[in-house]
Amino acid sequence: VAIDLNADLGEGFGIWRLGDDDALMSVVTSANVACGFHAGDPITMQRVCEQAAARGVAIGAQVGYRDLAGFGRRRIDIPADELTADLLYQVGALQACARAAGAAVAYLKPHGALYNTAADDQDQARAIVRAASLAGDLPVLGLPGSALAVAVEAAGLRFVAEGFIDRAYTPNGRLVPRTEPGAVHHDAALALEQARELANGRVTATDGALLAMPVHSLCLHGDTAGAVELASAVRAALEGDGIELGPFATP
Amino acid sequence: VAIDLNADLGEGFGIWRLGDDDALMSVVTSANVACGFHAGDPITMQRVCEQAAARGVAIGAQVGYRDLAGFGRRRIDIPADELTADLLYQVGALQACARAAGAAVAYLKPHGALYNTAADDQDQARAIVRAASLAGDLPVLGLPGSALAVAVEAAGLRFVAEGFIDRAYTPNGRLVPRTEPGAVHHDAALALEQARELANGRVTATDGALLAMPVHSLCLHGDTAGAVELASAVRAALEGDGIELGPFATP
Amino acid sequence: VAIDLNADLGEGFGIWRLGDDDALMSVVTSANVACGFHAGDPITMQRVCEQAAARGVAIGAQVGYRDLAGFGRRRIDIPADELTADLLYQVGALQACARAAGAAVAYLKPHGALYNTAADDQDQARAIVRAASLAGDLPVLGLPGSALAVAVEAAGLRFVAEGFIDRAYTPNGRLVPRTEPGAVHHDAALALEQARELANGRVTATDGALLAMPVHSLCLHGDTAGAVELASAVRAALEGDGIELGPFATP
Amino acid sequence: VAIDLNADLGEGFGIWRLGDDDALMSVVTSANVACGFHAGDPITMQRVCEQAAARGVAIGAQVGYRDLAGFGRRRIDIPADELTADLLYQVGALQACARAAGAAVAYLKPHGALYNTAADDQDQARAIVRAASLAGDLPVLGLPGSALAVAVEAAGLRFVAEGFIDRAYTPNGRLVPRTEPGAVHHDAALALEQARELANGRVTATDGALLAMPVHSLCLHGDTAGAVELASAVRAALEGDGIELGPFATP
Repeated sequence: VAIDLNADLGEGFGIWRLGDDDALMSVVTSANVACGFHAGDPITMQRVCEQAAARGVAIGAQVGYRDLAGFGRRRIDIPADELTADLLYQVGALQACARAAGAAVAYLKPHGALYNTAADDQDQARAIVRAASLAGDLPVLGLPGSALAVAVEAAGLRFVAEGFIDRAYTPNGRLVPRTEPGAVHHDAALALEQARELANGRVTATDGALLAMPVHSLCLHGDTAGAVELASAVRAALEGDGIELGPFATP
Repeated sequence: VAIDLNADLGEGFGIWRLGDDDALMSVVTSANVACGFHAGDPITMQRVCEQAAARGVAIGAQVGYRDLAGFGRRRIDIPADELTADLLYQVGALQACARAAGAAVAYLKPHGALYNTAADDQDQARAIVRAASLAGDLPVLGLPGSALAVAVEAAGLRFVAEGFIDRAYTPNGRLVPRTEPGAVHHDAALALEQARELANGRVTATDGALLAMPVHSLCLHGDTAGAVELASAVRAALEGDGIELGPFATP
Repeated sequence: VAIDLNADLGEGFGIWRLGDDDALMSVVTSANVACGFHAGDPITMQRVCEQAAARGVAIGAQVGYRDLAGFGRRRIDIPADELTADLLYQVGALQACARAAGAAVAYLKPHGALYNTAADDQDQARAIVRAASLAGDLPVLGLPGSALAVAVEAAGLRFVAEGFIDRAYTPNGRLVPRTEPGAVHHDAALALEQARELANGRVTATDGALLAMPVHSLCLHGDTAGAVELASAVRAALEGDGIELGPFATP
Repeated sequence: VAIDLNADLGEGFGIWRLGDDDALMSVVTSANVACGFHAGDPITMQRVCEQAAARGVAIGAQVGYRDLAGFGRRRIDIPADELTADLLYQVGALQACARAAGAAVAYLKPHGALYNTAADDQDQARAIVRAASLAGDLPVLGLPGSALAVAVEAAGLRFVAEGFIDRAYTPNGRLVPRTEPGAVHHDAALALEQARELANGRVTATDGALLAMPVHSLCLHGDTAGAVELASAVRAALEGDGIELGPFATP
């Protein structure tokens, strides 16, 4: 089965840009496109969809809290029904952009604080699932073992697990919290090695043990120094290993 | 052929309400639903779509400038391609809400300053038409004789002309500008009489002449004193006249 | 010492209104003016300041989270330094409006979810205090016994305790949570009686005991049915009791 | 009399940055600080004010339309009284930030489409002037010969004329419109030479004539390729010419 490479794209707003969309688009197989609430503006969404369609990259709805000022990185205690409506709205907007480009939205991925909240908060996790369901039973991309994963599967939708090439894993297979030392692999070689492990369904934990970590997609970053180079190196290494790359979902 | 009664609905935002949506929903055959840029929030959009679907009322995308502070009543000089993207985004968001309610968006109607600008400005008119086209070749509801009407028909889409029951018409069939005396019929009886004329394809101009005014829809208002009562009276009068009422478009 | 009557004013946004500002302005001695982040627009702020200045009503900065869609009622996990900056920005904007009206901002009061969060969350409480300090050592109006009260006094600023005429108090002097039955006095006569008690520094708790509850201001509401009538009745009753009414702070 | 060097600073929003604020801050004598409506967020405003205060750089309120999505570059037909309130709000917010940094706002400069509109539109020009007046009779920095210049002086406020080092001037002393060829000097050497002329109250027009062009400030840019280098070169050249540099206004 093919491994998917996903990254966040279209995360500018108006005159402001973030990351190198063009470079990333040539690396990923799935593009998480920001939908306007925490980042992303309509004309950028349209253009990213056109590029993705031209390259055969799958389009995902990168949905988040209504929080341009905080880039969706601030947890917001929003009632579940309002959250569902906010997310459905975002997905619908992106669906129109995708259709205009001759494509379609293939999945949903929560962004930032919503991603983190949905790892533990069942109400918000279920609100996300309900939006994915109302938007056409979209697959959901996220953290394995999370409340979101449970809620997605309970609803009969498809959950797609992603792995992080630059985050350390605990012996029981969870991400080391960012507040702890060693949580992030700043060394590109280490990240590259972890990418190759994850592409084979494994990861080396902080205690040196090799864990099973069955993920279908690897999350790449594009907005930090050296990120695009690392993403390209990951793609090249996996291709060199003979691993098939491709989107996990086509609409 | 049936006459359509359209009105603006869902024009609140968050805690704020505008007009009596419930009352209007029982009068109209087409609901112009605000899509979040000048008014309208996602959960309200969802609820209005559910109500419309339950009553067989057609759902239209009431699209406008990104201008919550000005309720879309301020003309904005936005480049045509950015305007198209903004409108496509709004329509897509509403389409998702409509689909979730088992319905679909049947038409597009520009709001406020965008409506007025599109009466004369060919660039903005064409930007609207392009959004309607990209969103699935939606019919466009608007002012007969406007630049928008011309642009819609030039693009091969369906233009639906609406009449105003409470606005005076000049001898050559245009609306008397609001800045002139007598532009608005504040007398409900006069508005009611004009509604009956328009439903028969005619209107009495300011010089007393009876003009041909072939309109397919009558625009009702809901946000002024007595507006809902007038709207109900219009519906009752037309029904009493044996005129068939119904949406002009079903998706 | 005079008792202050405070209420939220200027809580509309653009075309949308909330509550009856004109009526409330004739009742209160302090107006908590919304500053644009959760409600309130600049021209409304200017007008409310002019009215307050004309009537000798004290102007307070009703500051909140950046959350128009949620009316500031959603807790947001924002870093303390960013919260301070957001609040300082809001106070400064209102200060300019007040100065233009020949008045000044006399105090700060957090709104909605920020008010509730600051009752327990020391980081956000201190962020509010820092904004009050940077904005000119403004007094802070809030809940007695809260983390905010502690933080204000620790910083050497003036904390002003307010009482709620329509909320039940527990035997240990806290508000009964809204989720519990009997939390809110829906009976106007009961609220009126509690107002008279609070104006004398006492309140009857849910167990019938009469507690000392030294408050300097009573919080009135204006956005619910009968609220303005109740507010007027409270004022009339206190005046009838010979209690002096007046703002707790003049800049 | 000293020549002032002004540039736009603090034009990011949230996670997004624009231009190199730190580099520019070491070149200019006046910083036009974005105030949150078209760019600029509260914590950035606070930090820029602190840096300006530390360096003795004058702080100006870079005010604009409420238009984050368009960076204030879209003309908006907003009623004059609402525009005044919007601008007063922005200035007040910056004044609070400046005061917190031990400084004060020394002047006002309209941004983007507001700058251009105020060159010809008397209503909007007067709305700006009224805000400057209400905010404490602030000097206004702008285009010589504009409607804004006339309105500022008619109101008895101080108008400060600025020159553009990279824009061609017509024989009658106006800027060549951007739509015409040669409107912008893309050659740094040419811009540098024009800066030296303007610092001496002159400019060479498109017909080769040397015009009197008495300006008090030179506008530098920071958000284009090579802009910071050019700005530094201008400062060095003027200092090498023995021209005194300094802010035109201190509060």
